Amino acid sequence: MPKEFEIIDYFRKNSHITGEHLIKGPGDDMAVMKVGGEELLITADTLLEGVHFDLSTATLEQVGYKAMACSLSDCAAMCSSPIGAIGCTSFPTYLTMAQIEQLHSGVQKAARKYNCPIIGGDVTSWDNPLAISITMFSVMKNGRKPVYRSGAVVGDRIMVTGKLGGSIKGRHLTFEPRIKESELIYDNSDLHSMMDISDGLAGDLRHICKESEVSAILDHALIPYSDEVSTNNDPVSNALSDGEDFELLFTVSENDSVNLLKEWPYTNVSLTVIGEIIPQVNGPEIFIKKNNEKLLFTGTGWEHLTK
Amino acid sequence: MPKEFEIIDYFRKNSHITGEHLIKGPGDDMAVMKVGGEELLITADTLLEGVHFDLSTATLEQVGYKAMACSLSDCAAMCSSPIGAIGCTSFPTYLTMAQIEQLHSGVQKAARKYNCPIIGGDVTSWDNPLAISITMFSVMKNGRKPVYRSGAVVGDRIMVTGKLGGSIKGRHLTFEPRIKESELIYDNSDLHSMMDISDGLAGDLRHICKESEVSAILDHALIPYSDEVSTNNDPVSNALSDGEDFELLFTVSENDSVNLLKEWPYTNVSLTVIGEIIPQVNGPEIFIKKNNEKLLFTGTGWEHLTK
Repeated sequence: MPKEFEIIDYFRKNSHITGEHLIKGPGDDMAVMKVGGEELLITADTLLEGVHFDLSTATLEQVGYKAMACSLSDCAAMCSSPIGAIGCTSFPTYLTMAQIEQLHSGVQKAARKYNCPIIGGDVTSWDNPLAISITMFSVMKNGRKPVYRSGAVVGDRIMVTGKLGGSIKGRHLTFEPRIKESELIYDNSDLHSMMDISDGLAGDLRHICKESEVSAILDHALIPYSDEVSTNNDPVSNALSDGEDFELLFTVSENDSVNLLKEWPYTNVSLTVIGEIIPQVNGPEIFIKKNNEKLLFTGTGWEHLTK
Repeated sequence: MPKEFEIIDYFRKNSHITGEHLIKGPGDDMAVMKVGGEELLITADTLLEGVHFDLSTATLEQVGYKAMACSLSDCAAMCSSPIGAIGCTSFPTYLTMAQIEQLHSGVQKAARKYNCPIIGGDVTSWDNPLAISITMFSVMKNGRKPVYRSGAVVGDRIMVTGKLGGSIKGRHLTFEPRIKESELIYDNSDLHSMMDISDGLAGDLRHICKESEVSAILDHALIPYSDEVSTNNDPVSNALSDGEDFELLFTVSENDSVNLLKEWPYTNVSLTVIGEIIPQVNGPEIFIKKNNEKLLFTGTGWEHLTK
């Protein structure tokens, strides 16, 4: 079995991805189409039992909520407003109606809270584990334009919402998509680039650097880590690499970063400057300053560069 | 495990299905939203290994093609033009890159032929069978309006494209979605109601009758059956009940039915009048005239009414 990124890479290079309605295909948090002169944004996420959730530690209601929240987080990452979703669910035949109702109640909890109705889908069943795919649509409101990963420029401050790492302890099932936070950031800054953190801060920041043709340097002392990260090791290393934070990662000018921090109204969600966008030398690279060292992120860990 | 229709019924009755962009939620071949003043239609289909295809009799290329073709058939059923699709695929970990490429080539064959690019999606893997969900978007072109199941009126002629039954012998993997046929029918008649036949003619016609608050009577002698139906039994009974024909089922006035038959340009796809819409007495009922008998469709078979 090839790795998922190899499959995606093959798909992107060998597909018919064109058409009069297409604005942006694969490669960002959401694809963008033009419909009736308006931008329609689309994302999809699949949750698989035994891979993305475990029914011995997660309730079915949490699974339903998470399926919606992952896609809502993508909407936030583009600064878009969700308008509807399609659900494709493959139920294991052993599930009872009461269990299916629990899953549904989690989906509906998110649908109501974020005003994003499930408007259709497909229900199937089989003698295999639960699979749920949500495809979600959003539009740009109040004259906003989609915020891509590709707009970071040298000198930008790198910022994150919330505290990172340790999501696996439970937050990955209950997190709040940062929709209102992303709208506030958009409306109070010139937002250059943004994405949500789903695969870990360091790896995801590299997506921004790759699409923007820049590099980035983080400050180890500034990385906000959650109370849930392991205290046995360096908690920042968890904050840098743990997946499923679903926080916003974005870049703005230094001035805008100062203003955003000054005006930030949310007391239960932190906002932090964690580093800076720097010129690219050898392709998109992620560095970190730790004490007096500068380390390079290799994809699987950190390599010493200078003392 | 409850039946799929019970689950769907529960979902429809217990969901937040509203919003300023929503025009039509679950219950037709596609949901309809309003985006930028234009109608955006959306459908989704999941194909599961061991349920909807069997890799001992279907190639992976055929599975990829079928996944797209099922949704393209829904676009045809609404008289809409596909503009893009999202693919969520859960790969069994034993698959090789060469096998994944075969699946992809089938998807792309349909994408190119019907100008419907896959613009995004999600790739996941697990130690379970293959699952593929396609969510497809379409728009109304040339001033057309979506054709629903709910517009049939008493006196309408019931018509079908193609020949029915026996799709399981192979046609369900290779069928051509009736997109150009549906556009031609729309442009040359006042099309009252339409859907595609996916669960069998008799059961699907009941959806039109239910949504339109009418009943229907078919003529046994007129039902076009495919060469692939079993010749051991009554071939018409297969044509009435076999699934996955993916032909168009629609109703128009008697005049329009005559004109459509006269002007029908396709020699490789038949067009047939098979019955008539009649007033509803005891809810939506499907009758069939066979010799001098009138039979009632019960959902699982046919019940004698009059001699």
